[in-house]
Amino acid sequence: MPEYNAPLRDMRFVMDELLDMTGSYAAYGLEDATPDLVSAILEEGAKFTNQVLSPLNRTGDEEGCHIENGVVTTPKGFKEAYQAYCENGWGSMTASPEYGGQGLPSSLGLILAEMVASANYSFSMYPGLSHGCAAAIAAHGTNEQKELYLNKLTPGTWTGTMCLTEPHCGTDLGLVKTRAVPQADGTYKVTGTKIFISCGEHDMSENIVHLVLAKLPDAPAGTKGISLFIVPKFLPDANGEVGERNSLICGSIEHKMGIKASATCVMNFDDATGFLIGDVNKGLNCMFTMMNHARLGTGMQGLCHGEASYQSALAYAKDRLQMRSLKGPAAPDKAADPIIVHPDVRRMLLTMKAFNEGNRALAYHTAKLLDQAHYAAEEEARADAEAQLAFLTPICKAFMTDTGLEATLLGQQVFGGHGFIREWGQEQHVRDCRIAPIYEGTNGIQALDLLGRKVLGSQGKLLKTFTKQVHLLCKEVEGDAKFGDYAKKLAQLNAQWGELTTSVGMKAMQNPEEVGAAAVDYLAFSGYVVHAYLWLKMALVAQAKLDEGSTEVDFYKGKLATQAFFYQRLLPRAQAHAEALTAGASSLMDIAVEQF
Amino acid sequence: MPEYNAPLRDMRFVMDELLDMTGSYAAYGLEDATPDLVSAILEEGAKFTNQVLSPLNRTGDEEGCHIENGVVTTPKGFKEAYQAYCENGWGSMTASPEYGGQGLPSSLGLILAEMVASANYSFSMYPGLSHGCAAAIAAHGTNEQKELYLNKLTPGTWTGTMCLTEPHCGTDLGLVKTRAVPQADGTYKVTGTKIFISCGEHDMSENIVHLVLAKLPDAPAGTKGISLFIVPKFLPDANGEVGERNSLICGSIEHKMGIKASATCVMNFDDATGFLIGDVNKGLNCMFTMMNHARLGTGMQGLCHGEASYQSALAYAKDRLQMRSLKGPAAPDKAADPIIVHPDVRRMLLTMKAFNEGNRALAYHTAKLLDQAHYAAEEEARADAEAQLAFLTPICKAFMTDTGLEATLLGQQVFGGHGFIREWGQEQHVRDCRIAPIYEGTNGIQALDLLGRKVLGSQGKLLKTFTKQVHLLCKEVEGDAKFGDYAKKLAQLNAQWGELTTSVGMKAMQNPEEVGAAAVDYLAFSGYVVHAYLWLKMALVAQAKLDEGSTEVDFYKGKLATQAFFYQRLLPRAQAHAEALTAGASSLMDIAVEQF
Repeated sequence: MPEYNAPLRDMRFVMDELLDMTGSYAAYGLEDATPDLVSAILEEGAKFTNQVLSPLNRTGDEEGCHIENGVVTTPKGFKEAYQAYCENGWGSMTASPEYGGQGLPSSLGLILAEMVASANYSFSMYPGLSHGCAAAIAAHGTNEQKELYLNKLTPGTWTGTMCLTEPHCGTDLGLVKTRAVPQADGTYKVTGTKIFISCGEHDMSENIVHLVLAKLPDAPAGTKGISLFIVPKFLPDANGEVGERNSLICGSIEHKMGIKASATCVMNFDDATGFLIGDVNKGLNCMFTMMNHARLGTGMQGLCHGEASYQSALAYAKDRLQMRSLKGPAAPDKAADPIIVHPDVRRMLLTMKAFNEGNRALAYHTAKLLDQAHYAAEEEARADAEAQLAFLTPICKAFMTDTGLEATLLGQQVFGGHGFIREWGQEQHVRDCRIAPIYEGTNGIQALDLLGRKVLGSQGKLLKTFTKQVHLLCKEVEGDAKFGDYAKKLAQLNAQWGELTTSVGMKAMQNPEEVGAAAVDYLAFSGYVVHAYLWLKMALVAQAKLDEGSTEVDFYKGKLATQAFFYQRLLPRAQAHAEALTAGASSLMDIAVEQF
Repeated sequence: MPEYNAPLRDMRFVMDELLDMTGSYAAYGLEDATPDLVSAILEEGAKFTNQVLSPLNRTGDEEGCHIENGVVTTPKGFKEAYQAYCENGWGSMTASPEYGGQGLPSSLGLILAEMVASANYSFSMYPGLSHGCAAAIAAHGTNEQKELYLNKLTPGTWTGTMCLTEPHCGTDLGLVKTRAVPQADGTYKVTGTKIFISCGEHDMSENIVHLVLAKLPDAPAGTKGISLFIVPKFLPDANGEVGERNSLICGSIEHKMGIKASATCVMNFDDATGFLIGDVNKGLNCMFTMMNHARLGTGMQGLCHGEASYQSALAYAKDRLQMRSLKGPAAPDKAADPIIVHPDVRRMLLTMKAFNEGNRALAYHTAKLLDQAHYAAEEEARADAEAQLAFLTPICKAFMTDTGLEATLLGQQVFGGHGFIREWGQEQHVRDCRIAPIYEGTNGIQALDLLGRKVLGSQGKLLKTFTKQVHLLCKEVEGDAKFGDYAKKLAQLNAQWGELTTSVGMKAMQNPEEVGAAAVDYLAFSGYVVHAYLWLKMALVAQAKLDEGSTEVDFYKGKLATQAFFYQRLLPRAQAHAEALTAGASSLMDIAVEQF
C-alpha cells in the first residue's frame, strides 16, 4: 500500500530558501516560532501523518461513513486518529493562547495542513471545517460566544461546520430558505434543510457546532437578508458543557465519488435553537471574512493529491519494468527497462512535478501574505497584503485544483491498467481530488471573482500589484546568460496579461457577458503566468545554491530541469487560453438554447 | 435517474448527409442494408438501449460483479438483458451468414455499438469482447474451428475473451510467461496467469472461449515467440456442445474505479487444453489484425460517455435555476435563471458538444473506411482504405478518449456539487470513461504508433493520405465569404503538420528518443487538425441545407455555432501542442533519475 511521506526537503526549500518565512515570523513578533521549533513541528508532523493518517487513507475510502437513525459512524480508526491529532496539539497550533491555542503563525498551520491533507484528505476535513467555524466565531462572536465555543473548538473537544448550501441553492445563496424566528429570550428558532454539509454529523467529538445561514422573517430578499447563527448539536449547559440535545438531525449522508471517509450530510433543522453571530443580515459578510483562508486551503487540495499521486507514480516508474529504452537497454541485466527511461513517462512525471512544486510555491507565497495581513504592525503592510490576497486567492483555489486534478490523472496514467484498480491507490487520488474544482465556490465562480470583482472591479489595480513584481524580476534577470530568455518570455506574457485585461474590460463596458465569457480562460492564463514567475524565482535560488557549491546537486538540478520543462512544455498553453478568451462572448452566446 | 437517448438526428446527419454511408452500402453490394432497414435498425436500437440497457447502468455500477469459488455473478438484470440482446439479433448483425449472422455492414455494427455502449458501457463489454474473439477466429481459424466456435459465438450462446496481459507485462507482451506445451494429440497444455481479462468469467453464456497468448517451450525470445490458442472454459464435445470442464479458473476479480458491472478477471490456466490458432509464433499478428476495429471501438468509448454526460448536463443546465443572467433576468417569473444563460456553463456545454460531434464524425468516417477495407471490390481501394485506417486508428483511440474524458469532467462540473454524488450519474461517466485512455494500448503507446510506426515509418506517406484531403478541401473553400477564413486557418495548420513531422523526423535520425518525446503532443495536434477538417466539412453541409431552405433551422444553426466555437476556442490548443513537441527530447531526458 502506498504511503505518503511529507516532502520536507521541498517544503523547506520554499519556506526558507525562496520565501524566508521563518525570518518573517521573527519580524512579526511571533518569537515562539523559532527555527528550531519550526523544524521540530515539521518533522513531527511528517511522522504523525505518515504513521497515523496515511495508513487510514485507503481503508477509510473502502469503508466510508455509515448512518443509522441519524447517528454517523466514521471508518475504523478515524476516531482514535482524531483523538491523537488533538492530544498532540496539531489542531490548536495557530489558535489564540487566550482559548488554549499555541499562537503559532497561520502559515505554519497551512503547511502542517498540507501534510495532513496529503496523507488523508477525508480525515483533514474534520479539523479543517472546525477551524473555519472557530475562525468565524473568533472574528464575529461576542466575548461570551468566544469564551464558550473557542475553549471547546480549540482543543478539538467539540468540532464545527459551515451550513450554507440548500437543495435548490449552492452558488446562489440569495435563495436560502432556512428561516430563523426570533424568540423572547434573544435566541432564534432555526428551521430548514441544509445539504452537502461536510462533517455535519460524526462520532469524533462530543458536540458539533453548526454555523447556519438563515433568514429572519422580515429579511430583505437576496443575499442582503442572510444572517448567521450558531446552532449546536447539544446546547451548552450553564457550565459550558454538553447539555440538552438541540432539535436538529442528520437525515442522510451522500454517496459520493470520493472523500468517502468524510461524512457529507443532509442536516434537518426543526425549530432548532440558534444564536445570532455578527449583525442581522450580515451573515454572508461573516462567512466571507474566512474566504481567503478557506479557498487557499481548498486550492491546496490540488497540491496534496498531486503530491501523493506523484510519490507513488515516481516509485512505480523506477520499479516497473516494461520495454527497452529507445536508445537501447538501460538495464541489460533485467528483463526490461524501468519505465522511467521512456520519454513520455517522464513527460507525465515532470508535468506533475512542475505543477506540484509550482503550486507549493504559490500556496506558501500566499500563506506568507496571510501572515502579513494578520500580523504586520503597520496598517499599510496589512492592507497591501489584503490586496495581494484578494487577487491571488481565486487563482490559488482554481488553478491549483485544476492542475492538481490533471496531476492525479497523469499519476494514474503512469500506472497503466494498475492505475485503474484500487490496489495502488492512484484512482482514489483522482476521485478524492475531483471535488476540489467544484466546492468552496466552483472554479467558474473563482474565475468570475478574479476577472470581474478583483481585476476589473479594481480598475486593474489588483492586477498591477502582481504584474509589478513580475516586471521587477524580469528587469533584474533580463541580461542573465542562462535565464535571460526565460525572463524575456515571462515579460512578454506579463505585458500581454495587461493587454488582455484592457481588451476584455473595454468590451465588458458594452456587454457584461464578456466577463463571464472570458473568465475561465483568463484565470488559466493568469495561473500559468503566476507559476512562470514563481518557477523563475525558484530557478534563480537553485542556481545560486549550485554556484555557491552546494552538495545537494541533484535537488537543485532537478529544480532547474523542471523550470526549463515548465517553460518549454507547459507555459505554451497560456497562449491557447489567451486566444480562446479573445473570441469573446459571441462565441458562446450566439447559439440559441434550442440549438444545443 | 438520467436516461440515455440515442441522438438519432446527429447520427443520421453524419451517416447520410456528411458521409452517405447508406449509399456506399449499395456500392459495396451490401444490398440487404437498404435505407429502410438501416432506419429500422437505428430506431429499434435506440428503443432497446433506452428501455433495456440504460436502466441497468447505475444499478450495475452500484451492485458490481461478485465472485465465489471461481463463479462470477453479474449484476441483477444483466443476464436477462444479454439474452434479449442476443434474441433480438443485435450481436449477430455483422457476422457472416455462413455462421448464422446477418451479414450487415461492419460500420452499421459500430453505430449500433455506439448506442449500446452509451447506454451501458459495462454491458457492452461482454458482446464487445466476444466480437473480437469471433473476428480473430474468423480471420485465422481453420474451417473446423470456424464451424465449431463461430456457430456458437455468433448467436451469443457462447462468449469470448482476449487473454494478453500478465502481472509483469501489459504493453510489453514480449515478456509473456504463459507456456503452451504440445501434446501428442495436436492439442497444447496451457499454463499461466493472465490478468485484467475483461469478461473472463460470468454467468451470461453457457461457455467462454478464451484466446490466450502463450509461448511454446522452444519459442524465440520476445514478441516473435508468441502463439495464440483457443482455450475454452468447457471443451466442446463431439457434437460441438458444452463438454468437459477445462482446467482454468477465475482466481479473483478486480476492484476498479469504474466499469464495475464488467468483470475484470484474473484467469489461472493450469495445464488447460488449448488449440493453436494461426501459425506458431505468429500470435501477435493474429491479434493485430483486429486492432483497427478494437481500437476504434475503444476510441468510441470516449464519444459514448461524452454523449451520455452531455445529455444529462444539457437537461440540467436548462432546468437548474441559479443566479441571474449578467444581462438581467432571463426568466423574471422564476426565482433565478436557468444556468444555461451563464457564459461559462455554455463554454462547458459547447466544449462537450464540439468534441462529441467531432468524435462521432471521426468515428463514422473511420468506420466507413473499415467498410471499404472489407468490402471494396478493387484491391487498390481496399489498400487505400487500409492505409488511411493505419493512420487514423491511433488518433481515434487516443484523441477520442482524451477528449471524451474531458467532456465527462465538464459534464460533471456543470452539475456543481450534484455532479460529485452518485444520484445524477455524472460521476459514473467519469469513472467509467477513465479506463479508455489506458487500455487497448495506452494513449502514450497510440502516440508512438502514430508518429513512429505510421507517419515516420512510412516516410510521411500515410500522413499525406490525409493532408491531401485537407488541402483539397481548403482549396475548395478558400474564397468562400463565410468559411474562407476557417479554411485559411485549417490550411495553415495542415502545412504546419507536415513541417512538424519533417522536423521531428530529422531530429529522430540523430536520436530515437525524439520520437517518444514528441509523440503525445504530436497526436494531440493531429487530433485537433482532424477535428477541424471534419468540422469544416460538417459546417459546409449545414450551410448548404440552410441555403436550400431546410426547416430544421435549429439543428443546422447549432452545427454552425459549434463549428465556429471549435475554431475559436478549442483549436488554439493545437499551437500549444506544437510548441511543446518542438522542445524536443532534451526537455525530458536531461534530468537524471535521481533528480526527480
